[in-house]
Amino acid sequence: MAQEAQAENGSKASPVVFAAVKPWLVVEAPKANDAVQFYKAAFGAEEVSRVNHTKRKAEQELPLVLSAELKLGSSSIVVSDLTDDASAPVKSPVSGSLFCLETEDVEAAVSKAVAAGAVTEGEVSEGEGACCGGRVGRVKDPYGNVWLICSPSKKCADVAA
Amino acid sequence: MAQEAQAENGSKASPVVFAAVKPWLVVEAPKANDAVQFYKAAFGAEEVSRVNHTKRKAEQELPLVLSAELKLGSSSIVVSDLTDDASAPVKSPVSGSLFCLETEDVEAAVSKAVAAGAVTEGEVSEGEGACCGGRVGRVKDPYGNVWLICSPSKKCADVAA
Repeated sequence: MAQEAQAENGSKASPVVFAAVKPWLVVEAPKANDAVQFYKAAFGAEEVSRVNHTKRKAEQELPLVLSAELKLGSSSIVVSDLTDDASAPVKSPVSGSLFCLETEDVEAAVSKAVAAGAVTEGEVSEGEGACCGGRVGRVKDPYGNVWLICSPSKKCADVAA
Repeated sequence: MAQEAQAENGSKASPVVFAAVKPWLVVEAPKANDAVQFYKAAFGAEEVSRVNHTKRKAEQELPLVLSAELKLGSSSIVVSDLTDDASAPVKSPVSGSLFCLETEDVEAAVSKAVAAGAVTEGEVSEGEGACCGGRVGRVKDPYGNVWLICSPSKKCADVAA
């Protein structure tokens, strides 16, 4: 009977599962590109993908980095320029740390985090960064860290043509 | 000839390889235990190991957490109480983020990071946290983030009897 109930209501009964944690390093614009080069040189990181900011001011020589994903061992880190543009996934300075959590069910994961004591920051919406190409929810935990809960993005794993 | 040189001088020629990045979350003492419970409840994290602080003040009811390692998907995070004790791996407030990088050759990794522009914070020494049970070097990158470069600890993978 328990199995039947699970089979009938599988989507609600399935636990929230995360693939991995990706630390998101936000640097003062326009230093993200320098930071990427540094992490390559210092730690042997490999750039997997990069999404530049589409809008940029005329006086800026470099496009701002919306998100660059780097592979470091079995982990990934994401580097971004801090920008005040509303379309950027990182909208405001973060006092704690920022992490990206990938999961298939963003809404369920956000609900679970809120039930445990996290506070949502805005609605779940469509992201456009390298890590958060799908739906993105944003919650702050009780210790000041911000977690972006995202559906997996094809931009992360295999960039399609 | 290049192969010969590499074979003769393998240890120097071998590249620095990191296993993974572990974000280290430092919370105001004594809230680390609460934080661990939160990450379990909110994100389904599993506690892999914990090292408590050996010294504690008489008036404190809970032992301070030197480091608790949690598995979250294929990643690990480490949670610590912020303490001013000199033996703790996290000695002072960190303005940016704190990450643990595991590698077999700590000195080479620190040298490479410094050559790329990082600044060492103290000497390479013996650590005692869950993530940094072996030798630990500490460098700050040009963007304010601190990286603990550690040799792998048996406490992380398989706790020996």
